[in-house]
Amino acid sequence: MATPFLRPGDRKTDQLRVTSLTPGFVGMAEGSVLIEAGYTRVLCNATIENGVPGWLRNSGRGWVTAEYGMLPRATLTRTPREAERGKIGGRTHEIQRLIGRSLRSVVDMTALGERTVILDCDVLQADGGTRTAAITGACAALAIALNKLVEAGTLPQNPMRELVAATSVGIVEGNVLLDLCYEEDSQAEVDMNVVMTESGGLVETQATAERHPYTREQLGTMLDFAEIGIRHLFELQRHTVR
Amino acid sequence: MATPFLRPGDRKTDQLRVTSLTPGFVGMAEGSVLIEAGYTRVLCNATIENGVPGWLRNSGRGWVTAEYGMLPRATLTRTPREAERGKIGGRTHEIQRLIGRSLRSVVDMTALGERTVILDCDVLQADGGTRTAAITGACAALAIALNKLVEAGTLPQNPMRELVAATSVGIVEGNVLLDLCYEEDSQAEVDMNVVMTESGGLVETQATAERHPYTREQLGTMLDFAEIGIRHLFELQRHTVR
Amino acid sequence: MATPFLRPGDRKTDQLRVTSLTPGFVGMAEGSVLIEAGYTRVLCNATIENGVPGWLRNSGRGWVTAEYGMLPRATLTRTPREAERGKIGGRTHEIQRLIGRSLRSVVDMTALGERTVILDCDVLQADGGTRTAAITGACAALAIALNKLVEAGTLPQNPMRELVAATSVGIVEGNVLLDLCYEEDSQAEVDMNVVMTESGGLVETQATAERHPYTREQLGTMLDFAEIGIRHLFELQRHTVR
Amino acid sequence: MATPFLRPGDRKTDQLRVTSLTPGFVGMAEGSVLIEAGYTRVLCNATIENGVPGWLRNSGRGWVTAEYGMLPRATLTRTPREAERGKIGGRTHEIQRLIGRSLRSVVDMTALGERTVILDCDVLQADGGTRTAAITGACAALAIALNKLVEAGTLPQNPMRELVAATSVGIVEGNVLLDLCYEEDSQAEVDMNVVMTESGGLVETQATAERHPYTREQLGTMLDFAEIGIRHLFELQRHTVR
Amino acid sequence: MATPFLRPGDRKTDQLRVTSLTPGFVGMAEGSVLIEAGYTRVLCNATIENGVPGWLRNSGRGWVTAEYGMLPRATLTRTPREAERGKIGGRTHEIQRLIGRSLRSVVDMTALGERTVILDCDVLQADGGTRTAAITGACAALAIALNKLVEAGTLPQNPMRELVAATSVGIVEGNVLLDLCYEEDSQAEVDMNVVMTESGGLVETQATAERHPYTREQLGTMLDFAEIGIRHLFELQRHTVR
Amino acid sequence: MATPFLRPGDRKTDQLRVTSLTPGFVGMAEGSVLIEAGYTRVLCNATIENGVPGWLRNSGRGWVTAEYGMLPRATLTRTPREAERGKIGGRTHEIQRLIGRSLRSVVDMTALGERTVILDCDVLQADGGTRTAAITGACAALAIALNKLVEAGTLPQNPMRELVAATSVGIVEGNVLLDLCYEEDSQAEVDMNVVMTESGGLVETQATAERHPYTREQLGTMLDFAEIGIRHLFELQRHTVR
Repeated sequence: MATPFLRPGDRKTDQLRVTSLTPGFVGMAEGSVLIEAGYTRVLCNATIENGVPGWLRNSGRGWVTAEYGMLPRATLTRTPREAERGKIGGRTHEIQRLIGRSLRSVVDMTALGERTVILDCDVLQADGGTRTAAITGACAALAIALNKLVEAGTLPQNPMRELVAATSVGIVEGNVLLDLCYEEDSQAEVDMNVVMTESGGLVETQATAERHPYTREQLGTMLDFAEIGIRHLFELQRHTVR
Repeated sequence: MATPFLRPGDRKTDQLRVTSLTPGFVGMAEGSVLIEAGYTRVLCNATIENGVPGWLRNSGRGWVTAEYGMLPRATLTRTPREAERGKIGGRTHEIQRLIGRSLRSVVDMTALGERTVILDCDVLQADGGTRTAAITGACAALAIALNKLVEAGTLPQNPMRELVAATSVGIVEGNVLLDLCYEEDSQAEVDMNVVMTESGGLVETQATAERHPYTREQLGTMLDFAEIGIRHLFELQRHTVR
Repeated sequence: MATPFLRPGDRKTDQLRVTSLTPGFVGMAEGSVLIEAGYTRVLCNATIENGVPGWLRNSGRGWVTAEYGMLPRATLTRTPREAERGKIGGRTHEIQRLIGRSLRSVVDMTALGERTVILDCDVLQADGGTRTAAITGACAALAIALNKLVEAGTLPQNPMRELVAATSVGIVEGNVLLDLCYEEDSQAEVDMNVVMTESGGLVETQATAERHPYTREQLGTMLDFAEIGIRHLFELQRHTVR
Repeated sequence: MATPFLRPGDRKTDQLRVTSLTPGFVGMAEGSVLIEAGYTRVLCNATIENGVPGWLRNSGRGWVTAEYGMLPRATLTRTPREAERGKIGGRTHEIQRLIGRSLRSVVDMTALGERTVILDCDVLQADGGTRTAAITGACAALAIALNKLVEAGTLPQNPMRELVAATSVGIVEGNVLLDLCYEEDSQAEVDMNVVMTESGGLVETQATAERHPYTREQLGTMLDFAEIGIRHLFELQRHTVR
Repeated sequence: MATPFLRPGDRKTDQLRVTSLTPGFVGMAEGSVLIEAGYTRVLCNATIENGVPGWLRNSGRGWVTAEYGMLPRATLTRTPREAERGKIGGRTHEIQRLIGRSLRSVVDMTALGERTVILDCDVLQADGGTRTAAITGACAALAIALNKLVEAGTLPQNPMRELVAATSVGIVEGNVLLDLCYEEDSQAEVDMNVVMTESGGLVETQATAERHPYTREQLGTMLDFAEIGIRHLFELQRHTVR
Repeated sequence: MATPFLRPGDRKTDQLRVTSLTPGFVGMAEGSVLIEAGYTRVLCNATIENGVPGWLRNSGRGWVTAEYGMLPRATLTRTPREAERGKIGGRTHEIQRLIGRSLRSVVDMTALGERTVILDCDVLQADGGTRTAAITGACAALAIALNKLVEAGTLPQNPMRELVAATSVGIVEGNVLLDLCYEEDSQAEVDMNVVMTESGGLVETQATAERHPYTREQLGTMLDFAEIGIRHLFELQRHTVR
């Protein structure tokens, strides 16, 4: 069923793009990481504020949330600013909710105490996979920011239980592919995002048929590929955070 | 690991709630279906308009989209109107995008021609599973509306290739459960939505860990349960559409 | 001057449409009434919340307010959602202010105490007279909700002094007609809404010439007809509320 | 039932406040009238633009509409700007719709042709009765603007069939009073606006019980008083327009 | 380089338009001044409120701010209302920030105490120079309002250290001109606003090349002309304030 | 009068911060320059689109405009996103209008033809002087983008007549300083922005007294210092553009 498919740069089907995490890209933030995955570049900044949203007040628990934005010229043709249009679009909402949920799954909110961490994920250049890159980069920025609280003696230990990372997988002309760039993504029949923790637990799996429905067997292969990629991302995160 | 869990009304773990589809609830719409799943009630109305959004003009292809709303008192405590707050929230955006994608996966856009179908899914009462009920009900409303175009001789045949339906599954205290009501949903460790076509293809699978990550084995059981439920929903849809 | 005019369904000029009030349509609300007047259907839900708006705080007095909405496909051609357009239109504002004022005229705010009652009036199907139907239905929903506070021992007696109901009258081709359906309304020279209390007091009379001015004599006949209709609505309300 | 009531300035119950209309207050507009009624001052400017809203295009008919605003310091305590709050309030919508309807009732839209007249009514100082003053002032501004089209030979004759004017009446401590100032209005049990044409036809009558319902007899007296006041306003308008 | 240029009304290049300040135009405000400069007319109303914005609370210091608006028909062709468009435009923001800064430069905030003064500057007619007229008029309205606090014994002395006034200068066909009207302004190569205090200090100088850059020498001449005009405005202010 | 003032890093009063321009920072844009001035970093991307705004259509002339944004964590404490707040603030409007005007002053719009160039200036890190850095960086990005049109043969020659650059000057404790960093800027008595063309013409001079008015002599010194800085920026731009 699958037509042999040649990936740009001769990448193997289960191979990540060249990926790097640069800590400290912005000096003003408590934690700052620039993640680059191929041509995709997302700047992830962590801000720790005292206090929590109303519904958590006096609960002794903290909160982690995310905001996502894209510079107008991150894309090949310019996208108007959401600030200019006066409202956040549906896609942006969907992505920032996903990032927030993913990060909250690995943070012990009681250990964090009544603090709010905001992860700002801003896409400087977009070539597919920006939301999963944002999760991976934001996790590293969050870990760095929380480490500083530990170093400063504010917290006895880092409230992050383990790392979390994410990648995309998809099916193009019947081939399961790991970490799709924009060109591949736009031809994909199926597009899947997988968020996994260091200990191998699944936090979020979202597989969407863009053109043709997929089978459970294909779902299995996509999960296998995603795990290969995410294992590699954990290594990069560990290297960056330390 | 799983604690035995008694469902409200002694429901079995792989049993749907009492579900019904009432066609023609609103006489003004081209297709109208009230879906009831337990206490959840969603009114799904299909509108067919000539013309398509700008990016499809002169393509010969049609478009199917959805809007989702909830009456303020669909819930036990009142929720302020989105119109009053002046913007559509992130959750609403996420749901209406999901409904739209699900329906588009079974419609032959070329056979539809340059027409836009809008599915308005309005929740009159909410007791969990409103987004999946909306997909199942909207599919029936869409089928009815398109049948009228065929009967009127406007279209030679119904551009809907097959039916699509959806249900939720989840894990509560370690037990996989089908079609969660609100009370179950609020305790769930994992919450999953599955959208499937009549021929068994997967259109959308979204599994979110609310508290603890899940394993691939649990993902498999959830998919099994979902398929049991959705098979039953197809019967209800077929009965309603004819 | 008047051209004889045949009403749809052979209705007499001073005859209401078939009207019914169904209590308990939504189980989640403190008071819920579905009012049907011909093809017009409005769901009226009452919510009682503790506390009052700022300007009434510590006054010992309560507040009653209303919100009005229309489902997009309540009408023969679809009307875009106000939530989607990001603002409440002038017509909606006008209607919700009218409903609120009408209900406040029969409630003893000191007996209500520092509570706010919100009446959500949502039009499921619109065939003329939705604002007056909303007043009549909302009054019944409000009475039911307040009765529950009395039954629960929260209030010693119902703070509603008497019932209030409303209907529309108009002039079509010179004929004064009671309770206009959409088709009649769209041809009307004059359109009038009358809100009256059980004891016969006028709360609100609004007569608008759409095409030709009207005389004081015609105004008198419209008030006579309105009173005939409203007397009948009080019977339906009393039956529903008990 | 009525307690004798002493009006500020010893005004009689059926006496208007000192009222004047100043034409040409703003030189930039096609028609401009400053109306003063006691301390109430409303600047009414008419703009005539070619073209009509979409639904009237190619109908050969014109359109007349109104906008209403209040300077922040028109009132004794400052009211925040609607532009600052980012939306037009319900009261403003209600008023501008009323002004528009009132003026349209006396204009022959076919004689106007495909032109749009916008009447901007801006309250410089508010002491009650701003909406009725706006109608009276805007009618004069409209007449002046249309006269210029006739003088310029653009139109063969003025499309305004007759004048229209408005005043308020109310009941204070049981006394029917004409043309209430703010202090009287804030104590009124009933507040009524009457819009009448020169030939005595009623265009709009709106009587609202703020505290106690009113009787049909009281409604009659209010209409009598309104007619006395409006007859005087027509004289002022005729003097201004010529 | 300069082409001899004949100003409307034979005005000299360094001559202000006929300018007047009318105090008490609106009786409701603490301070009210209508400034007229040629055909430009701006109504400036001062409101004094107790309390200050959040960031100044418990600082013992006051705040002075301004809002600017233009009636739709202040201009030769009608400008849509900002309230209608739902947002304040960039030009308005720029102007109200300028007015606020200018006035704050002459007020002793500690002497004012925790009070906020809002200057509403509303343009009734616009013929160039509205922002500088607003500064000059608002300064007078502010002085009047603060004088009342002194007269009432609320403040021991007026917290205004000195007066501030503003005018525009520009270059048209190479000629430096003082106080440009709209016709001149629209042909200007350079447009400059100068805000100066009574003691001769510069508060704000903004010179913008609309078409051709300007030299430092031209900048000097523009400042000379501005000073001539502003000296005259101080006389008018002093006369009005007393 | 001036207190000797030690600048961070021992900078001289008339010395720029270390400044660099990096071309090609974002590969997707027609022209892209990252400008760094001390810790201030602004990403300037140029987009060239065919067509012009409505008022220029069929004029044969082009248009150049700018948008300005700041990442939430560009600053030491996080600033909420304008997209989240649903509107562009006054400061942003003011800045993007300034950037647009500055660039338009050096472009021959007829030579550009009916094209629109949008300069997106996004602040990644803010340490004072972001608006002047944006002008300097955007000018370089614009030159690069226009050069590409010349290289591609679309335009016969670059429509940019000369370069334009900008810097800030100010007065701190009586000392005139060039190119203020945030710490200096927050203590400044006077803050000035100067925009100059390569041939020495002034395009925009804005000097604002934040605390004390300034003299004409001080204005002169500020202009001298600005010219020193801008001459250096032209060298950097020429080096980058080639």
